[in-house]
Amino acid sequence: MSELIDIEAKKLKSLYEPRSVAIIGASQNPDKVGYKILFNLKRSGYQGTIVPVNPTADSILDFKSYKSLDEFDGTIDLSVIVVPRKSVMDAVKASIAKGAKAVSVITAGFKEQDHEGAELEKQLAALCKDSGVYLLGPNCLGHLNTQFNMDVSFGNKWPKKDNIAFISQSGALCSAVLDRAAERGFGLSKMISIGNKAGLTERELLESLADDDSTNVIVCYLESIDNGQEFVKIAGKVSEKKPIIVFKSGVTKSGSKAASSHTGSLAGADIAYETAFNKCGVIRVQTYEQMFEYATAFNSQSLPKGRNVAVITNAGGPGIMATDAIELSGLKMAELSPSATEELKAFLPKAASVKNPVDVLGDADPLRYAKALEVLQKDPNVDSIIILLTPQAVTKPMETAQVLCRALDGSKPVLACFMGGTDVTPSRDYMMEKGLADYRSPEKAVNALKAMVSYAEWKKKPSVESKEIKGDRAAVSAIIGKYRAAGQVQINESDTKKILRAYGVNTPAGALVSSAEEAAKESAKIGYPIAMKIVSPDIIHKSDVGGVMLHLKTAEAVSQAYSAMLEKIKTNVPNARITGVYIEKMSNPGSKEVIIGLTRDPQFGPMVMFGMGGIFVELLKDVKFALAPVSNTEALEMIKQIKTYPLLSGYRGQKPVAVEAIADTIARISQLAIDFPEIKEMDINPFMAFPGAEESAAVDGRMTLTAQ
Amino acid sequence: MSELIDIEAKKLKSLYEPRSVAIIGASQNPDKVGYKILFNLKRSGYQGTIVPVNPTADSILDFKSYKSLDEFDGTIDLSVIVVPRKSVMDAVKASIAKGAKAVSVITAGFKEQDHEGAELEKQLAALCKDSGVYLLGPNCLGHLNTQFNMDVSFGNKWPKKDNIAFISQSGALCSAVLDRAAERGFGLSKMISIGNKAGLTERELLESLADDDSTNVIVCYLESIDNGQEFVKIAGKVSEKKPIIVFKSGVTKSGSKAASSHTGSLAGADIAYETAFNKCGVIRVQTYEQMFEYATAFNSQSLPKGRNVAVITNAGGPGIMATDAIELSGLKMAELSPSATEELKAFLPKAASVKNPVDVLGDADPLRYAKALEVLQKDPNVDSIIILLTPQAVTKPMETAQVLCRALDGSKPVLACFMGGTDVTPSRDYMMEKGLADYRSPEKAVNALKAMVSYAEWKKKPSVESKEIKGDRAAVSAIIGKYRAAGQVQINESDTKKILRAYGVNTPAGALVSSAEEAAKESAKIGYPIAMKIVSPDIIHKSDVGGVMLHLKTAEAVSQAYSAMLEKIKTNVPNARITGVYIEKMSNPGSKEVIIGLTRDPQFGPMVMFGMGGIFVELLKDVKFALAPVSNTEALEMIKQIKTYPLLSGYRGQKPVAVEAIADTIARISQLAIDFPEIKEMDINPFMAFPGAEESAAVDGRMTLTAQ
Repeated sequence: MSELIDIEAKKLKSLYEPRSVAIIGASQNPDKVGYKILFNLKRSGYQGTIVPVNPTADSILDFKSYKSLDEFDGTIDLSVIVVPRKSVMDAVKASIAKGAKAVSVITAGFKEQDHEGAELEKQLAALCKDSGVYLLGPNCLGHLNTQFNMDVSFGNKWPKKDNIAFISQSGALCSAVLDRAAERGFGLSKMISIGNKAGLTERELLESLADDDSTNVIVCYLESIDNGQEFVKIAGKVSEKKPIIVFKSGVTKSGSKAASSHTGSLAGADIAYETAFNKCGVIRVQTYEQMFEYATAFNSQSLPKGRNVAVITNAGGPGIMATDAIELSGLKMAELSPSATEELKAFLPKAASVKNPVDVLGDADPLRYAKALEVLQKDPNVDSIIILLTPQAVTKPMETAQVLCRALDGSKPVLACFMGGTDVTPSRDYMMEKGLADYRSPEKAVNALKAMVSYAEWKKKPSVESKEIKGDRAAVSAIIGKYRAAGQVQINESDTKKILRAYGVNTPAGALVSSAEEAAKESAKIGYPIAMKIVSPDIIHKSDVGGVMLHLKTAEAVSQAYSAMLEKIKTNVPNARITGVYIEKMSNPGSKEVIIGLTRDPQFGPMVMFGMGGIFVELLKDVKFALAPVSNTEALEMIKQIKTYPLLSGYRGQKPVAVEAIADTIARISQLAIDFPEIKEMDINPFMAFPGAEESAAVDGRMTLTAQ
Repeated sequence: MSELIDIEAKKLKSLYEPRSVAIIGASQNPDKVGYKILFNLKRSGYQGTIVPVNPTADSILDFKSYKSLDEFDGTIDLSVIVVPRKSVMDAVKASIAKGAKAVSVITAGFKEQDHEGAELEKQLAALCKDSGVYLLGPNCLGHLNTQFNMDVSFGNKWPKKDNIAFISQSGALCSAVLDRAAERGFGLSKMISIGNKAGLTERELLESLADDDSTNVIVCYLESIDNGQEFVKIAGKVSEKKPIIVFKSGVTKSGSKAASSHTGSLAGADIAYETAFNKCGVIRVQTYEQMFEYATAFNSQSLPKGRNVAVITNAGGPGIMATDAIELSGLKMAELSPSATEELKAFLPKAASVKNPVDVLGDADPLRYAKALEVLQKDPNVDSIIILLTPQAVTKPMETAQVLCRALDGSKPVLACFMGGTDVTPSRDYMMEKGLADYRSPEKAVNALKAMVSYAEWKKKPSVESKEIKGDRAAVSAIIGKYRAAGQVQINESDTKKILRAYGVNTPAGALVSSAEEAAKESAKIGYPIAMKIVSPDIIHKSDVGGVMLHLKTAEAVSQAYSAMLEKIKTNVPNARITGVYIEKMSNPGSKEVIIGLTRDPQFGPMVMFGMGGIFVELLKDVKFALAPVSNTEALEMIKQIKTYPLLSGYRGQKPVAVEAIADTIARISQLAIDFPEIKEMDINPFMAFPGAEESAAVDGRMTLTAQ
């Protein structure tokens, strides 16, 4: 029972389908927002009880008006609040007293205005949370639900019923989108302006729309995402059911943050968003127009089964444009099947092209278009179809649109691009109306199609369960505890490697020693050649101060090197605290240096990074990020995505290195990051990858803890 | 006098401003093209003599019609031909007989159809050329000139008079553009459909429009460019006077061509176009819509003086979108001057933002917009302005558009983006009408602005005269002659270096020897260490067959190596013809390997390439191309544009290498390529760049001649 209630609650019924709505701050003045909302609610044909509240009016817009909500004798489900800031709290309290399960605070002047407003907003959020009431806003345009005939926004337009939901962090953008929808012939299922997101955020709204039958596709305009990890979880689940299109603005605003690792300095906020969206299947758009260009395609068309696109055109030029765009986008020009080619030949004039793009010629009548579409719809070599038309002397755009819409069988996505202006506008409107998405230019149609292909591919990806990685948590906790106790955040190489080993990451054999004799003795056990490095919390750039000696081939050499190193350190860094000297077996030639890193994004949490080492990471930034947890399969994909991957896979006759060992290490690091939020950043640099997995190892590493 | 005639001829007066026009193939049937053209000519208000020719009609559209052109008693300037293919030649001859200086062949079915058509087209072109008559087409939509009230196309619309000229290789696209212009409120000065380009091509048309006072900007849709080198010359000259916007389609169609050099295999046709357009200042667009989005900005606005953009908005979200787009495009958000900030504060509400983007708030009235614009127009820190508007509750789009247009002072480019649909359409149309370019989205406005900035920067570039490079032509000719005589196209390393030296390119000291004794003797002269390489027309991959020996440090070692090498070659390639062995001083460490190459594009001629050597060129394709001739200054720019440039300029405390020596070599190679069209391809790989210019040298090189 309680689960059922939860499911109902998740659908936000009181917000979307209230039986009664109070408008506190309703106004008789048509210039006021409080009038506009009541006006919109009336215009939308809302069938529930409407309760305007105004301290002086008796009736507004023919509705009985109440001096205060107390006067109303009944319960309300949703309360829309448009009173001045100072009165908002009382209005919310009154609403709750009347049974409101959702309040929408239109009023602005909170967090976005000043400190006092921010405080008030906090109190508001707390009150609603404690009372189990959904809070939309404050500082929003309101919301609407076309399927329920309810508009409690102060937008200018009532959109037609359609299956696109729009969530926006900008109220002004809602106005622009409503206006554009009116012009371009697309509609909405719901529109929700989320304002300051003090209560309801994109997360709850996405969840509420996942099972909303009237919504096929969700479009979000977001300026920030607050709880990124939770967002990824929810968006991932929703994306399995329906596409989420996100326009995330503010991508260049994030200043550079101080970072002590390569990984940290390479991971800007935008990379975190990109990585997060990739993980949870969110379709990211880069421009305002793409939001609804993509949405109309997703809303009206089935998903393509593959990348092969066929093009029908009545002119060569636009056909070439489409071909260019298809190939540049990574889609493919379909090679038509022999039977399709024959069928096309049977009815097309001799001068027509029966190859892709199919050129039905400038004098094409509507029927020629429709027949070509029918043939391509049946051709198994074709996964999607783009139809181009230019208004030439004998072209009949409207009749063509009509027969095309009739010929659609829904088996494949079909996008149209009727180029031109006034001559084609009615036909474009007609097609949009009939569910055949139309675009201004071939490039736009191709971009929308590409987004559909990418989403379809994301959906088809087998959900790889990470194999469970069980690290030796106790060992890691002990090391971290030691540093915490000493108030240090920088974990030295020796301890970093201990932590790595505790999580099953291969490291070269080594030992921390504190005398020349011990160094010699341990070296004999480990085997030569030996590398020797100073370990000190006060020394970060070891080689600059003489703290690194390499290629030591005998016990004697090791012992001498030890003394010489300590001598140099004493001279160069007189006050350095010396923990000891780390000796380690050096690797044999034949390896590739790669870097595996970890950083923690403020929104999305731990992200692992992979790239080729040296100048490739520093200069060319040839790296890939992924959100933790990362499975071995996902890690392998990351590895294959870098541009210099051929260097690992057998470039110029070299032996390929064991990429599975790299992938395994990435997966282990991602688990370590999840288990220990105290680890802020980390570089394994280099990880030496050899043809043999067993040889491949983390040769140097550093780790930074979060500040306490 | 003859020069004056030439100038008149270049303006194509008989094509654009004929005193009389014959339409051969005029028709009474409204479905026929021959009717449509006459109809259009009448509709356009043409004031000259109109001469319809039709074998049966007496009059068409109230014009007296002639059975044949002979019947007409007078001269004609322009003849438009719409008769079937087989009669075109006679129609052209008849036109010439009546004094026609220009013929426009609308008829299709020539080169694009079959071999016979191609032949006919050639004869047509030859006839016109011999008679000194301009030939437009065949297979075109015709042309129009709004300033002269003349439309001899069969397009559907008569555009309004404006200052954009449109040249199109696709007739269907002309129809689409005319239709779009009607809707979006932009106009044209001239439109010319060039069809098969048998006579007039984009080159003559560009030239003719350079001094056309009614044209501010030229837009071209091109599927091919025939004489690339000539195009670059002409377009470069025209670009100095007015912007040329080109949409080049067919970018992915060019198959890979067989190439025997790195340079050749990296240089696709699209790189050649990109390189060519960069050289001559052509503004390249990537989508259909950008053609006129850019054109309207160039047509109506002055060029920006710098990269600093100010934004005015009545909503936060779109302001962020614009900021993102500006920063991603490489433009800068202007930092407003203190006085501008003060002035803004004086009239804007407290909650407004007086920083860039300037947020005039959701309740902004038209005056607030206009005042903000005035302040920013005066601010010397601002080079251009973007005005955003969303239609909110109290927004007055039309009044705002009106006051904004009045406030424009023309000192800086100002682009608008009134977002939405029907509510803003009238205001958008108004602004377009008044010369304030308006865009559908902030991103589009920013892209157009970026194009203006790039063009302005190209125009400001000092025209660097290449310093004249005088190579020893005779020496090079002699070497090439030797290979030609032998029927060989692959020039060996030794001869390649001789050619390079003849053009002043530094190469290591070396000699071609043919005995062990000679090798030892010459080595002593050259100095050690010595590198030794086999020279044979039958061996390309020398090291694979034992044909390379390095680091030889004594005369004895050289002598032994010589014998050993010849032994190996005999075993590995028994039938190889041995020219000799090349010995050479090896370079000292401390250098960087770069690659300098040359290839010859079928359209644009010689292109030089520069990149970092090794995997950087092979795997990452981190290279830059430039059309020859390349000045030292241009070569330096190329060098600085590669991603790995920091490796040359002192990465991680290394000494910078002498990039001027690289630049000098690039310039010399470009001259060599111009002087010797026989050289098809060439790689200097590696060129070793040292901190000292005198040490830097071409260490290995190969050259291929064109087939004879």
